[in-house]
Amino acid sequence: MAEATAADGQMKDLKISEVKKNKKDGTPKTAAKKPQQQKKKIEGAALIGIDVAKEADLSEWYQQVITKGQMISYYDVAGCYILEPGSYAIWENIKTWFDAKIKTLKVRNAYFPIFISSDNLEREKEHLEGFAAEVAWVTKGGKSDLEKPVAVRPTSETAMYPHFARKIQSHRDLPLKLNQWNNVVRWEFKHPMPFIRSREFLWQEGHTAHLTQEQATEEVLQILDWYADVYQELLAVPVVKGTKTVNEKFPGADFTTTIEGFIPATGRGIQAATSHALGQHFSKMFNITVEDPAAKEAGKSEHVHVWQNSWGLTTRSIGVMILTHGDNRGLVIPPRVAEIQVVIIPAGVTAKTSAEAKEDLYKKVDNIKSDLESVGVRVETDLREGYSPGFKFNDWEMKGIPLRIEFGPKDAEKGQVTTSRRDIDDKTAARGETKIEDLKEAIPKLLEQIQKDMLAKATKAYDEHRVQLTNWDEFVPTLNGKNVILVPHCEGDKCEDEVKAKSARTALGDGVAEDKQAPAMGAKSLCIPFDQPEGIKEGETKCINPDCKDFAKKWVLFGRSY
Amino acid sequence: MAEATAADGQMKDLKISEVKKNKKDGTPKTAAKKPQQQKKKIEGAALIGIDVAKEADLSEWYQQVITKGQMISYYDVAGCYILEPGSYAIWENIKTWFDAKIKTLKVRNAYFPIFISSDNLEREKEHLEGFAAEVAWVTKGGKSDLEKPVAVRPTSETAMYPHFARKIQSHRDLPLKLNQWNNVVRWEFKHPMPFIRSREFLWQEGHTAHLTQEQATEEVLQILDWYADVYQELLAVPVVKGTKTVNEKFPGADFTTTIEGFIPATGRGIQAATSHALGQHFSKMFNITVEDPAAKEAGKSEHVHVWQNSWGLTTRSIGVMILTHGDNRGLVIPPRVAEIQVVIIPAGVTAKTSAEAKEDLYKKVDNIKSDLESVGVRVETDLREGYSPGFKFNDWEMKGIPLRIEFGPKDAEKGQVTTSRRDIDDKTAARGETKIEDLKEAIPKLLEQIQKDMLAKATKAYDEHRVQLTNWDEFVPTLNGKNVILVPHCEGDKCEDEVKAKSARTALGDGVAEDKQAPAMGAKSLCIPFDQPEGIKEGETKCINPDCKDFAKKWVLFGRSY
Repeated sequence: MAEATAADGQMKDLKISEVKKNKKDGTPKTAAKKPQQQKKKIEGAALIGIDVAKEADLSEWYQQVITKGQMISYYDVAGCYILEPGSYAIWENIKTWFDAKIKTLKVRNAYFPIFISSDNLEREKEHLEGFAAEVAWVTKGGKSDLEKPVAVRPTSETAMYPHFARKIQSHRDLPLKLNQWNNVVRWEFKHPMPFIRSREFLWQEGHTAHLTQEQATEEVLQILDWYADVYQELLAVPVVKGTKTVNEKFPGADFTTTIEGFIPATGRGIQAATSHALGQHFSKMFNITVEDPAAKEAGKSEHVHVWQNSWGLTTRSIGVMILTHGDNRGLVIPPRVAEIQVVIIPAGVTAKTSAEAKEDLYKKVDNIKSDLESVGVRVETDLREGYSPGFKFNDWEMKGIPLRIEFGPKDAEKGQVTTSRRDIDDKTAARGETKIEDLKEAIPKLLEQIQKDMLAKATKAYDEHRVQLTNWDEFVPTLNGKNVILVPHCEGDKCEDEVKAKSARTALGDGVAEDKQAPAMGAKSLCIPFDQPEGIKEGETKCINPDCKDFAKKWVLFGRSY
Repeated sequence: MAEATAADGQMKDLKISEVKKNKKDGTPKTAAKKPQQQKKKIEGAALIGIDVAKEADLSEWYQQVITKGQMISYYDVAGCYILEPGSYAIWENIKTWFDAKIKTLKVRNAYFPIFISSDNLEREKEHLEGFAAEVAWVTKGGKSDLEKPVAVRPTSETAMYPHFARKIQSHRDLPLKLNQWNNVVRWEFKHPMPFIRSREFLWQEGHTAHLTQEQATEEVLQILDWYADVYQELLAVPVVKGTKTVNEKFPGADFTTTIEGFIPATGRGIQAATSHALGQHFSKMFNITVEDPAAKEAGKSEHVHVWQNSWGLTTRSIGVMILTHGDNRGLVIPPRVAEIQVVIIPAGVTAKTSAEAKEDLYKKVDNIKSDLESVGVRVETDLREGYSPGFKFNDWEMKGIPLRIEFGPKDAEKGQVTTSRRDIDDKTAARGETKIEDLKEAIPKLLEQIQKDMLAKATKAYDEHRVQLTNWDEFVPTLNGKNVILVPHCEGDKCEDEVKAKSARTALGDGVAEDKQAPAMGAKSLCIPFDQPEGIKEGETKCINPDCKDFAKKWVLFGRSY
């Protein structure tokens, strides 16, 4: 990445630590620093593992957690990252769940080319303006220059809608519902962050066309609900559902619905997924019409433009999950999406243990594994020689495996296993014992309990840091206290810009910069939550911005954000 | 496509008919020619449907079959195509099957960036030479020129192996087995053909590293077996397993194993999938070594380079399936991969049918559907109003649905359904009757029978057109008779080039060009089949090439090819 950064000369705020990591690419043998050589920063931390506290330096902590936890490896093209099997498996689990959901709506998967002709890309102006600055262009094939460069898709509206125009000839061709699981590229020059902001990412993009606005809106909201479920039910990450303000909506949409997450460690909001009602903007540009069946029944012939939606969920979700649950021992992965849910580690095997006793123990470990697999639990055993159980415990904790089962000769005697939950920090509280004959019932239950508790804990943190305010004086101090803020707002786009400018640290000149990644960031609107508290009186409640003359329309969630 | 073709000026032999098709992109409303307007060419063909016989003009037939059968839609970037839901579902079925297989070998899925730095791309010279001419380059991000362009992956060896070098620090990190399901781009200037040769395609690419050559070789062959199963057991397409000659092996491989298919309509062979033993070529270039555990036990410290494989199966497989089974009524899709295996069409409903009788019939149709779904059959019903059963029959036949169930009041009275197999051309022979109470058992059996019969039919065609020869005089005439040819050959690369040159039509000057897509094509080696007939005596049997002084080493399969 060092090289590519120097090359394009624009990824200015790339962190030094990241540059160092990526120099490794050319020199593999010195690349993987032995854990033992790393300096300790966390008091009492084990010899291997994460050596920077989450609360001390979130950015460095994140880098260590994702690399040592084997979610990400760095790569020598700036802003691009390798998704290792551990994180890709999470994506596959999300995919399986969501794909089954959209199939109930008769959405069908398809694949459109990654390249978009400039003619098509440029057809919807607002949309183009939204993406033009970050489109990657292929200009050469082999040694030949292409006379017309082709764009690498930043999103596929303009790739797909000429096809929609061909496919949709009659109202009987509606609704048309297609989805893609693919990769997209946005050549951003902002600070990159694995999962959260990368130049290439994986996502699904659903694109649908409907006869009526009502049908389209119903779908937009249904999809948003499922996105919320992906976060809350699968990733154990709480979100707030709402609508984007005009400033923040998708380029070319009528309105954008969104789920907004929260990273307690920085107090910043984060856009989690969006479902857009495109209205008729694109159908007008791409000429997607049908004869109106209602008019036809009345003996008239009228063509109407179709109502379109697009909606997307990306691998960013994995980053939000990591930032939410990870701790100073590494990753903490919710059971429902974990590639490995349970790791079984034999304990109490010493140099004195006889070969027979060891073989017997390992046989029992294998039986436990089979038992759990028979009830659908994803299990791994760690029978590596030459590593102590303590080393193995730390190793799997770093990888965030939700539940550890320890099993030694004493456990065998008692006919039980010792369990240890990854999500509970207190070692004693994390431990439990389960009779071997109860495992098939108890372990799936325990995994569900972990899942539930993780969501509850994260929800509590979000709830405590979502502060309702009506007084501007408290706005910036509350923001600086790592909160997002629900305020009465006029929904004016310029007023929103003012709020952002006023809450930027540079404007404040307070010299504080605990959030190193975004030292000068002001608060922008995250969403207009669907769930509106009482208290806003039309033509009476003032907008939070003291310089705004307008009355507030809605409670709007503001925050610094990713 | 017209435009992009003019643009890069090199896709010279792009067919006029294809250019025309793609002009449609800009003018969607006139694009979808009504089937009724098309001129008939097949005698007795229905008003809708395919109007060119497969045997008369394979190229035009193929275009009609893939577009009318809704496998492919054309796109306005040359050599790129839209995979419609019908074909994407086939790909998903292949994926599910193969993914489960490789998981039994503990292969894990991951995702590597689509962009490759030029430094990495250029590290293995032979590999680079193999791909350089067709690499697409991104040179711009937004409006800025990148100082160092990045390549769009044509394959990921050079993207992945720096990572392998970092991950593999000890023999205990071996084997390392990763797989990707992704898209790749090869900016070819040869004649494009949907599925068969496109500038972007989908595939899986497996990449593994092993301590020993034996382990690596074992895997290469296991994967090849599964590739053969994908073709034979899922797609009902016969293949010949073998090894590529030096001329035809993967750039940078020790040796390439391959499965070779056959398209009877043109008599051309087609490479179906390849599994490469990369040996130590890449591990030497990327410095992937481990300390040799055997040497260590003997008290020495020796580093050995790992043994690597890569193997890939692409969406080309869908094209081979279509070319093999399709007929003059359209697609014929094998049941195991079909998105829809059975379509139920109500029959005998006329203007005189009472609303009650119709409702009753439709309820029974729905019950049949539920029954079949309960045993895992993928079923659709066609209850569209305003279309005759005959129209519907043709429509679903064009889409290749393996089995049609007709159900009318008379069937209801008899407590049975009428079935019609898509794979049998004779209407009477295709038909059958099944008691409603037997459906759950009979239909899955019938689908398996269809699957089996499709493979048997295709195998017969391949077997009849794979001709064993020892006499050069028969070589070209046999080739012109739409055969591939098994001949004794010296395995010399220059001799192979000579055979190709001598069998090219231009060299023959016979003016015959029944294979319009490849009028001047000579025969190249397809593979050295694993299954070697007897008859080659070392130092005695002559190479087939009369001008070659060497003795034959093996029976080699030659043919014109895709």
